[in-house]
Amino acid sequence: MVLVRQEIGDVLRDFRLQKGRTLRQVAGEASVALGYLSEVERGQKEASSEILAAVADALDTPLSVIMGEVSDRLAIVEGLSVPLGSHVPDTVPADLVSGYRPELLARG
Amino acid sequence: MVLVRQEIGDVLRDFRLQKGRTLRQVAGEASVALGYLSEVERGQKEASSEILAAVADALDTPLSVIMGEVSDRLAIVEGLSVPLGSHVPDTVPADLVSGYRPELLARG
Repeated sequence: MVLVRQEIGDVLRDFRLQKGRTLRQVAGEASVALGYLSEVERGQKEASSEILAAVADALDTPLSVIMGEVSDRLAIVEGLSVPLGSHVPDTVPADLVSGYRPELLARG
Repeated sequence: MVLVRQEIGDVLRDFRLQKGRTLRQVAGEASVALGYLSEVERGQKEASSEILAAVADALDTPLSVIMGEVSDRLAIVEGLSVPLGSHVPDTVPADLVSGYRPELLARG
């Protein structure tokens, strides 16, 4: 089962690290207990809408941007989207190469 | 304060209505109490990630699509985006029409 809180936690942590902020700094600014924010980031606790708004504010990041990133990551987990770079196939499908027969070219 | 649960509730209700489903049908399929789902739709209760996944499944709508719509609506509320159609002004700015003086045309 795909869990939204897992993606929300990952996104909040990534935005925090991207801004070079510590868990203590963000928790302090958002007036959230450090242990609670840590559990939210690890996807172990659901963040209430009020906590989400306070943390987004402390990260200077609009909620729409956070939820947009959550949506993008959910799409990858749900197989509806592929991460950047992954559209290059590791192997070429067999039916794409079946018409290529070098031995015939050599004979011609 | 912008509350995510308000947008989630609106989006869940809109997707449900768009599919012509009743609250009772979706609650039944998602194994959620009808009163609880109703409160979630009205933005009065936070939906846990498990409930969100079950309701999304009952609506045959990926969570990424639901959260993407939530993100879009949050952007409008946050003033980062404008709803479709809203870029057409209701009134024409005065300085755009000040040069148009029909009485001069009639005289000429």
